[in-house]
Amino acid sequence: MDAQNIGRVVLVGGGPGAEDLLTLRGAAEIGRADVILYDRLAPDVRSLVSPTCELIDVGKVPRGEFTPQERINQLLIDHARAGAHVVRLKGGDNYVFGRGGEEALACMEAGVPFRVVPGITSAMSAATAAGVPLTHRGLTQGFTVVSGHVPPGDPRSDLDWTALANSGTTLAILMGVKNLPEICSALIDGGMDPATPAVTVEQASTPAQRVLRGTVSTIAEQCADAGVAPPATTVIGKVAALDLTSD
Amino acid sequence: MDAQNIGRVVLVGGGPGAEDLLTLRGAAEIGRADVILYDRLAPDVRSLVSPTCELIDVGKVPRGEFTPQERINQLLIDHARAGAHVVRLKGGDNYVFGRGGEEALACMEAGVPFRVVPGITSAMSAATAAGVPLTHRGLTQGFTVVSGHVPPGDPRSDLDWTALANSGTTLAILMGVKNLPEICSALIDGGMDPATPAVTVEQASTPAQRVLRGTVSTIAEQCADAGVAPPATTVIGKVAALDLTSD
Repeated sequence: MDAQNIGRVVLVGGGPGAEDLLTLRGAAEIGRADVILYDRLAPDVRSLVSPTCELIDVGKVPRGEFTPQERINQLLIDHARAGAHVVRLKGGDNYVFGRGGEEALACMEAGVPFRVVPGITSAMSAATAAGVPLTHRGLTQGFTVVSGHVPPGDPRSDLDWTALANSGTTLAILMGVKNLPEICSALIDGGMDPATPAVTVEQASTPAQRVLRGTVSTIAEQCADAGVAPPATTVIGKVAALDLTSD
Repeated sequence: MDAQNIGRVVLVGGGPGAEDLLTLRGAAEIGRADVILYDRLAPDVRSLVSPTCELIDVGKVPRGEFTPQERINQLLIDHARAGAHVVRLKGGDNYVFGRGGEEALACMEAGVPFRVVPGITSAMSAATAAGVPLTHRGLTQGFTVVSGHVPPGDPRSDLDWTALANSGTTLAILMGVKNLPEICSALIDGGMDPATPAVTVEQASTPAQRVLRGTVSTIAEQCADAGVAPPATTVIGKVAALDLTSD
């Protein structure tokens, strides 16, 4: 292998799904790419790629076929070592629940040059699509984004839900549809006012978007009754009472 | 005023400063704008605007001249009512410490149509620029972004710093340069391990970028010694020990 011919890896945050919520830099990297490894939640970028670009689906379908992370890391490295400009395209931001840190580490260890182009995380865009600002003067001075894929109390959980109930920040929960009853109970048991406003946004920013509004004590049952399915984001906090929408 | 001739307001998140970290949708809205109200931290978009676009600086210089929020709201409404396509351009995201919620409310109350185009918040891009992923498998399942402009214990503070010290999420502090000593003390007093890694990024993603690495017990003094000045972001948590950078 000739060091002069080594390619590079660019981790590109694809944003929440709409192609035009990519950044200009992300779109430019996609246009230059020889190879793109993409996921199920990545935006459809076929109109942006060069005619010779190879598109590889490494998408992870829950409980279905997927490409193991170690295999994805190896594909990134192998293509870059073969001289390709490789784009790793994810939905949202690669460094927010996107395993981008693992991919960057693998590139570092392999001596493969890499760059990261941030993307808009769906926590933010889903709230915006529902008319909810994550911060608002007089209501909160911060927000917290957590993954709800591990239930409170599970030995795999790194989170302290009592602390989350009391921080004073808006709480946005991604990947939490299945565990929402346990999450809301943990927040209330941890001291959160049961009347705290809550909103769930399913399929944000798509024609299928649904918005359910309630409180931390009602939203889990509302979601179950309505058959809410992933992807969905739940926002809990005073700001969730806002409904900033325009005709 | 003819209702048919009313314009609209688009709140556009300009991202962290580099023009190409705007979204495609944001850039398109800027290209269509008749009037743009922009801030000190907004990206320079002069290459994107139409020749007839009016650019109005409503930037807020700390302790200097600035346009009051109520006046900005009124300018947005007046220009839209005169039929203009008005863009309100902020650095970062209008709904993350950008007062976008207030501007959207003002538009709603005035019957002026508005849209929101999300932007990349500097909390995320600053961490990325320093080689720090806000989440990382095995280290944390979430992150929290707070404004540090009000010190812990101040009656204007909505935040519980003891809860923030214990949530298990990565903590990113914006606008916290001045209050960093009090903030770090409050976190340690609240139970955070004094050895928790911390990193401060000054002027992220610019040629003047500086990165200081330490712990929650050292970073405030390091920043003071180095003369760190706004804008700067401090990230505290296990992920801050990562340094994912490439040649």
